[in-house]
Amino acid sequence: MISHSVVRALRSSVRCWRHRAVLRAALEASDVGSWRWYSTPVRGGFPGMEEVLARVVAPLPSYETRDKSPPPPESNSLEFMHFYRSLDREDKLSLLSKLSQDFGVDHKTVSELAVKLLDTQLRDQATVLQVEDRLRYNLTPRYKQLLSHISRVEGGVKFLVDLRADLLEIISSKASESAHIRDLNGTLKGLLSEWFSVGLLRLERITWQSPCEILQKISQYEAVHPVRNWTDLKRRVGPYRRCYAFTHAAMPGEPLVVLHVALTEDISNNIQSIVREFATLDSEEDVNKINSAIFYSISSTQAGLQGVELGNYLIKRVVRELQSEFPHMAQFSSLSPIPGFSSWLQGLLSQYRKEGRGSDLLSEQEWKEVEQATDSTPGSPAVDSLRKLIATSEWTRSERLSAVLEPVLMRLCAWYLYGEKRRGFALNPVANFHLQNGATMWRLNWHADTSPRGVANSCGIMVNYRYFLNETSKNSALYLQNKVITASEQVLGLVSQYQKNSKL
Amino acid sequence: MISHSVVRALRSSVRCWRHRAVLRAALEASDVGSWRWYSTPVRGGFPGMEEVLARVVAPLPSYETRDKSPPPPESNSLEFMHFYRSLDREDKLSLLSKLSQDFGVDHKTVSELAVKLLDTQLRDQATVLQVEDRLRYNLTPRYKQLLSHISRVEGGVKFLVDLRADLLEIISSKASESAHIRDLNGTLKGLLSEWFSVGLLRLERITWQSPCEILQKISQYEAVHPVRNWTDLKRRVGPYRRCYAFTHAAMPGEPLVVLHVALTEDISNNIQSIVREFATLDSEEDVNKINSAIFYSISSTQAGLQGVELGNYLIKRVVRELQSEFPHMAQFSSLSPIPGFSSWLQGLLSQYRKEGRGSDLLSEQEWKEVEQATDSTPGSPAVDSLRKLIATSEWTRSERLSAVLEPVLMRLCAWYLYGEKRRGFALNPVANFHLQNGATMWRLNWHADTSPRGVANSCGIMVNYRYFLNETSKNSALYLQNKVITASEQVLGLVSQYQKNSKL
Amino acid sequence: MISHSVVRALRSSVRCWRHRAVLRAALEASDVGSWRWYSTPVRGGFPGMEEVLARVVAPLPSYETRDKSPPPPESNSLEFMHFYRSLDREDKLSLLSKLSQDFGVDHKTVSELAVKLLDTQLRDQATVLQVEDRLRYNLTPRYKQLLSHISRVEGGVKFLVDLRADLLEIISSKASESAHIRDLNGTLKGLLSEWFSVGLLRLERITWQSPCEILQKISQYEAVHPVRNWTDLKRRVGPYRRCYAFTHAAMPGEPLVVLHVALTEDISNNIQSIVREFATLDSEEDVNKINSAIFYSISSTQAGLQGVELGNYLIKRVVRELQSEFPHMAQFSSLSPIPGFSSWLQGLLSQYRKEGRGSDLLSEQEWKEVEQATDSTPGSPAVDSLRKLIATSEWTRSERLSAVLEPVLMRLCAWYLYGEKRRGFALNPVANFHLQNGATMWRLNWHADTSPRGVANSCGIMVNYRYFLNETSKNSALYLQNKVITASEQVLGLVSQYQKNSKL
Amino acid sequence: MISHSVVRALRSSVRCWRHRAVLRAALEASDVGSWRWYSTPVRGGFPGMEEVLARVVAPLPSYETRDKSPPPPESNSLEFMHFYRSLDREDKLSLLSKLSQDFGVDHKTVSELAVKLLDTQLRDQATVLQVEDRLRYNLTPRYKQLLSHISRVEGGVKFLVDLRADLLEIISSKASESAHIRDLNGTLKGLLSEWFSVGLLRLERITWQSPCEILQKISQYEAVHPVRNWTDLKRRVGPYRRCYAFTHAAMPGEPLVVLHVALTEDISNNIQSIVREFATLDSEEDVNKINSAIFYSISSTQAGLQGVELGNYLIKRVVRELQSEFPHMAQFSSLSPIPGFSSWLQGLLSQYRKEGRGSDLLSEQEWKEVEQATDSTPGSPAVDSLRKLIATSEWTRSERLSAVLEPVLMRLCAWYLYGEKRRGFALNPVANFHLQNGATMWRLNWHADTSPRGVANSCGIMVNYRYFLNETSKNSALYLQNKVITASEQVLGLVSQYQKNSKL
Repeated sequence: MISHSVVRALRSSVRCWRHRAVLRAALEASDVGSWRWYSTPVRGGFPGMEEVLARVVAPLPSYETRDKSPPPPESNSLEFMHFYRSLDREDKLSLLSKLSQDFGVDHKTVSELAVKLLDTQLRDQATVLQVEDRLRYNLTPRYKQLLSHISRVEGGVKFLVDLRADLLEIISSKASESAHIRDLNGTLKGLLSEWFSVGLLRLERITWQSPCEILQKISQYEAVHPVRNWTDLKRRVGPYRRCYAFTHAAMPGEPLVVLHVALTEDISNNIQSIVREFATLDSEEDVNKINSAIFYSISSTQAGLQGVELGNYLIKRVVRELQSEFPHMAQFSSLSPIPGFSSWLQGLLSQYRKEGRGSDLLSEQEWKEVEQATDSTPGSPAVDSLRKLIATSEWTRSERLSAVLEPVLMRLCAWYLYGEKRRGFALNPVANFHLQNGATMWRLNWHADTSPRGVANSCGIMVNYRYFLNETSKNSALYLQNKVITASEQVLGLVSQYQKNSKL
Repeated sequence: MISHSVVRALRSSVRCWRHRAVLRAALEASDVGSWRWYSTPVRGGFPGMEEVLARVVAPLPSYETRDKSPPPPESNSLEFMHFYRSLDREDKLSLLSKLSQDFGVDHKTVSELAVKLLDTQLRDQATVLQVEDRLRYNLTPRYKQLLSHISRVEGGVKFLVDLRADLLEIISSKASESAHIRDLNGTLKGLLSEWFSVGLLRLERITWQSPCEILQKISQYEAVHPVRNWTDLKRRVGPYRRCYAFTHAAMPGEPLVVLHVALTEDISNNIQSIVREFATLDSEEDVNKINSAIFYSISSTQAGLQGVELGNYLIKRVVRELQSEFPHMAQFSSLSPIPGFSSWLQGLLSQYRKEGRGSDLLSEQEWKEVEQATDSTPGSPAVDSLRKLIATSEWTRSERLSAVLEPVLMRLCAWYLYGEKRRGFALNPVANFHLQNGATMWRLNWHADTSPRGVANSCGIMVNYRYFLNETSKNSALYLQNKVITASEQVLGLVSQYQKNSKL
Repeated sequence: MISHSVVRALRSSVRCWRHRAVLRAALEASDVGSWRWYSTPVRGGFPGMEEVLARVVAPLPSYETRDKSPPPPESNSLEFMHFYRSLDREDKLSLLSKLSQDFGVDHKTVSELAVKLLDTQLRDQATVLQVEDRLRYNLTPRYKQLLSHISRVEGGVKFLVDLRADLLEIISSKASESAHIRDLNGTLKGLLSEWFSVGLLRLERITWQSPCEILQKISQYEAVHPVRNWTDLKRRVGPYRRCYAFTHAAMPGEPLVVLHVALTEDISNNIQSIVREFATLDSEEDVNKINSAIFYSISSTQAGLQGVELGNYLIKRVVRELQSEFPHMAQFSSLSPIPGFSSWLQGLLSQYRKEGRGSDLLSEQEWKEVEQATDSTPGSPAVDSLRKLIATSEWTRSERLSAVLEPVLMRLCAWYLYGEKRRGFALNPVANFHLQNGATMWRLNWHADTSPRGVANSCGIMVNYRYFLNETSKNSALYLQNKVITASEQVLGLVSQYQKNSKL
Repeated sequence: MISHSVVRALRSSVRCWRHRAVLRAALEASDVGSWRWYSTPVRGGFPGMEEVLARVVAPLPSYETRDKSPPPPESNSLEFMHFYRSLDREDKLSLLSKLSQDFGVDHKTVSELAVKLLDTQLRDQATVLQVEDRLRYNLTPRYKQLLSHISRVEGGVKFLVDLRADLLEIISSKASESAHIRDLNGTLKGLLSEWFSVGLLRLERITWQSPCEILQKISQYEAVHPVRNWTDLKRRVGPYRRCYAFTHAAMPGEPLVVLHVALTEDISNNIQSIVREFATLDSEEDVNKINSAIFYSISSTQAGLQGVELGNYLIKRVVRELQSEFPHMAQFSSLSPIPGFSSWLQGLLSQYRKEGRGSDLLSEQEWKEVEQATDSTPGSPAVDSLRKLIATSEWTRSERLSAVLEPVLMRLCAWYLYGEKRRGFALNPVANFHLQNGATMWRLNWHADTSPRGVANSCGIMVNYRYFLNETSKNSALYLQNKVITASEQVLGLVSQYQKNSKL
């Protein structure tokens, strides 16, 4: 039956495979030797590497005995961990390449099962399901068992998280183009996703009473608005602030993703008022002044958990936590940086300059004002002045120039966030994160991050992604499935100003 | 009700579907694309069942968008859990059948990928790996996602453990012969194995200071030597005793597998001295009297975790724990019941009686002594007397008879444990468990469990499976791979006596 | 100056002490020998008792070196504890008598300081204060130091609590009339009061998750409404119930005073509905049904802490706790037993019978009804019938009799609670406790405790002492200082009915 | 301001109250009953101060009703705490003066009871005891109750500890000569001693996993060897180090006394090797390298607990803790600073210079060498050079000079520690502390603290006070009772060298 459909499928779509005989012949021809390219010599490698791997990576038990096999001794896992840690970067690459190539899927068995699955004689449902199950089993790379066993020894999960960080670095640095390495990465990601499933995570509120070890890590991991000292840190876990982290039983004392929240009256439009103002350090919270929760920083701490969704779940859990603490709280919003806006803008200006356009970006009136405000030397086009001003953050020193540039930069920034895409999704990663979570692109804020870093990165602009709790599911689906961004009137207004100017 | 219809359906499938040809014809007539036979009418089912499933089981995203799909709203999981819990036994079966059939693997896609995999044109490694990865992905049943998502909501993991218990009961009670149900069971077991991986389990020592909730459960779950009252329970967690359990972050307050240990001078040969003697209730442990750790009870508490190896790991962890508490402790052994020995013996006697043999089991002298001791009425053969004696436990009242039977029962029991096999492994499940763990079948103990239950189950005999820590790995592998049982001289001696008598 | 006033005081009130010379002479006459009566032979005592005491009870350092003295070695305390525990009841009495007599205050020094204090030459304030301080210091019994030191070793505080329980038993059983024993008791009570000061107590909520050890104790200590089994216990810490205890750092795992609370819609008028109804065992609390907190049992667990106020503070703390959990909760009340009412009533009837009155207690009509309902044999006066009925609880079997007796017993009971006094305070100890705390005697409830015990003790009547939080301070002061009982109209109405009948 | 008035008052009391006669006359004129001199105008005081005190300090109940008095409302305590905290330093003094004077002991009653006690008619034991008990009761200052009640409200104990710190400062700064203030101080100390009795303290080991709040305090409180940064702090709670603190249930999160221990092979002779060496920061402890526990810093954190013995008990508890962790550990010793040695030496040199002696301190040979090494200008005596060298720490720059001075400074230092006394006890407070605890003055170490501070304070010398556990009790008693210092041969040798030189 199945094979019937398959055969029809073959006929219609694969065209050349007309006869089962042919199929079988082809398969028989592919003897083991033909898969020899899998052992393409990777590199000489560390002496003894092969021996270690041969010893510690147990063969995949046969399908029949899969539940009857004793687990390999723990010493295997410990030996591998010890060995791996002793290697330098290059040898690590070499080891991972070997592991992924020589201890992966047994392709021959898989092919045989594929043939079996396509057998037109296969007529009963139970057999189909069983062959599929065998296929599924045999698509398991041999090294997957090693990874599973490592997870069971003390410190094993953390080891694997770090090993995946190595893999990701190898892949992104193009140190290896190996498809096997990507497979290994995929397998490991799959395992980590199960182990770091939300049901297994613990939400912890971090306070000044939390262990020093954790607070030190919170401080180190804070990437968005660096913590300057311990007083600063104390502030971020003190009154009118909340700091939450997900931790995992297998990685004690290690926050996995950290969310900083400010409790405010209104939705904040300025980050310095949150991270610099220490007036409230010893004050008691006045619950009547708390109407809004501002997520002003979210940091993942484990490179090796990339792609394992945690931040999204953390925000949801924290919202629930805050609602139970402050039943009347109604406003949830991020106050987010806009990394990449300035460099995008620089690129835009360069391009316009090259293409001799540029006039589109600003209105004539605006160009004039820029010229006047900058005393552009005759001959030097205003666009160059503008580029330089932005590159140096000089414009912030002149109130007049600031006033001129505010509408320009705001509409450009709105476009950058709303209109610039990568594979259809928002180019800006922070925007993409919050939009996936179902947030609304709610408000761009001028003079929101006046730190040198803030001015350099995004001309001091920050953005609120607001979480309307009733709409996040709908927004998330709209965005992920239809690539539709939900945005407020302010943002849409700025976008349309941009479009008008740019004649888009 | 439901089962009625199911049984009817089964009957018709068994009786009437005799002609595969007919079936095949019918199937071929159907449009391949529709795969209609998967929706073989299971039963009308609970009104709304289909709607609920259609709503809560999201389709599998395409391979390309698999990382781009928003998780379904939590309400899906909650709705399913709520709905499932509201069903009676029969409707549950109906629901699980539907779920496993209609929301499983998309066989058509799988077949197409199998064809693709076999394409001889496929010659580059990266493409092969990618097709394999697609295949692996598409072999994921659609319902697997639902299960994953359920695990993330509060109480979800416990729900799934209980749901698997239902599945196992369905399978073992033959309520359904469905291969899909078995597939669902396999998928769920795979997930549970990841979530209950040892790295995620927490070892807890249970004491009288532990929460009442846990102690009550420990008491209820104790299956081997039932706890009679709270004093009894207090004793089992008091001095000269240890009680350990694995717990899991996602099922707080729920011991998963419980191990009771007695700390003794010598390896115990009697269970009453452990569970009945209360002299030590308030005494302080004298470390000099502690040389041995006797595992006298191990209980799994979650039917739904069958096949997820926990007990084995628990024993290993506890050994390590005890070694760190008592560095000089050298003897580790179980004191185990032998469930099934008496009924096996009854069967044996029946068969011998039927076959008119029987004389082989006991020597002539022994038969004579039995006759004398029982005053067997002439004509009634001694074998009948023996059967009756054992069935009624009467023999224990006569010292003389006891003395006569001791060597007989001991060698029969040794054979039962050592020689009786199922698929090559020890028939007795307790033996099988400890032998898999690498223990040695060390000593049979006469008069070891003199409780009515102990006499009825195993003629009062118990057995020590001893853990020689240096040899457990080797023993475990020998047993699992070569089906070799490691046993002591005492056991082997008894076995050979049996063989001599039985002319084996 | 001081002596001036003293001298005036002497003149006016002591009369005979006219001259300091006389005073001094008197004192000089009282040489050490004259205090010989302090060593009145107590009893032969345990051999070695004197030696032990002499060894472990260090002498009081001189006032000057009081801060320069090393603490005695811990072994002293341990020896005393060990020794004391090894004694039987009689030897304990002997030891405590010796300890309190021979190691008490040095009366001679005290007298000398009293003389010094009265010295008319004492003219400056600092000297007066210093002499007073010396006097205060020398009024410290020598054994106080031993008690202090015992409190510092492990288990020492619990030892002292138990030792005080022994003292109280000695005193109440009149085993010793010794004033020294009473002094020792007073000293120990003073110390315990400091150590069990509320600031050092910890409020713990007891739930089914609390350690088994504590729950077992809670069960054992429950004196008011005995716990029948573990299901009953589980109920008392389950939904719609709260159980709180004070614990102390120096006595871990030992609840000191336990308060059971039922959360109800209305103020309960029946105890069985609280301790017998298990419907809610697994239900979830519906916060909308919780308007009242009913304190239905409060038990002190440590006899040795008699007179150290804990229960009062526990109620106050629990009220605060409940208010923070249920901000809208407005009704706080006890549902209290009335121990002693039945026996008081029996006494009353006997007396009336003897004095030939009795007619006052019931109205003529009531007497008639009693006679009719009981078919009193002619000649046997109704009062005898009534006594017998109450002694046997027989009256509860007759509805008619119950109806007749309800108004009678209610008004008698109201009087018992409100009108019967001991040294001006309520005779009934439960009433006295709640009135001291500032509660209002709020409502007598007929058919409130229908258990045999309840009927036997108080004819099934229970009473609510209600805590109107704004008024408890005022009520408490009124009661304690002016012996005024605050009561509701219901209670006052019943009282006045009683008074009318009794012609009081 | 206030102090101004106080100083004025003091002045007048010193200058003008010359004539006691006058005073006495004035006093005699006043009605004895009124005891008006207690209200010697302290100062006008904060408006409302009297009212507040009158309101919150309840009168002492009569002896008869002492157990019948309701505790004052908690609001009294809170009002007092709030009021006190709102005052500035001067008003605090004023308040405490008023409190201690006007709300102290009722001297009149005390006098009357003293008279009663001396009544020769009093001949029975029970009456004597009762009068003594009344006397004791009436010697309780009225404010003691207030203090007791404050201890019961949240934060009350900490408030009283801080209040006592204020009292101690007032007394030591001579801001008040009032005997009443000293009495108040004594009363409060007595209460604190009970509440901070060792049985109520909890030993906590501080690690990097301890709450940040505590670690920050540990860092701030470290007075002996200041913590420079968080890495330094991490080191002090890391491998080969232990940090213990006593905490108290009523002051959560507040370490009361902190002991830092280094785990070493030999008894350390140098502090920099302990507090500066970071090699071991991430290493694992090798238990075989741990033979000694060096107490290198002990700090009390609460000024208000002065005189309440904690440090002594902490050392004892820590020794027990370490013995249980390292059963074979045999060497326990401090490595202690010698504050005051340099200034004592300067004083000594000045005096010798003045008295023209000086030659005794050093031998002729030594003087010569000092002269040579310093190129003393002719005419300037070597003693001046030496004083200057030591004052400036200049001598450490010259190896030659160091070599010359080593024997000199070592024997002077030994004498300073061993021979210099205050009221018969060691003048040096650190020495006094350890000798009271029963330690042996074991070894002076040259070049032991080469920090500028160490050189300035004690010429870089440190000393080990060694705890021979079998002898500490004996040593402690010898020291405290007989003022005998137990010292090693090294120390005694240095002392005798000093004596020989000094012709003592």
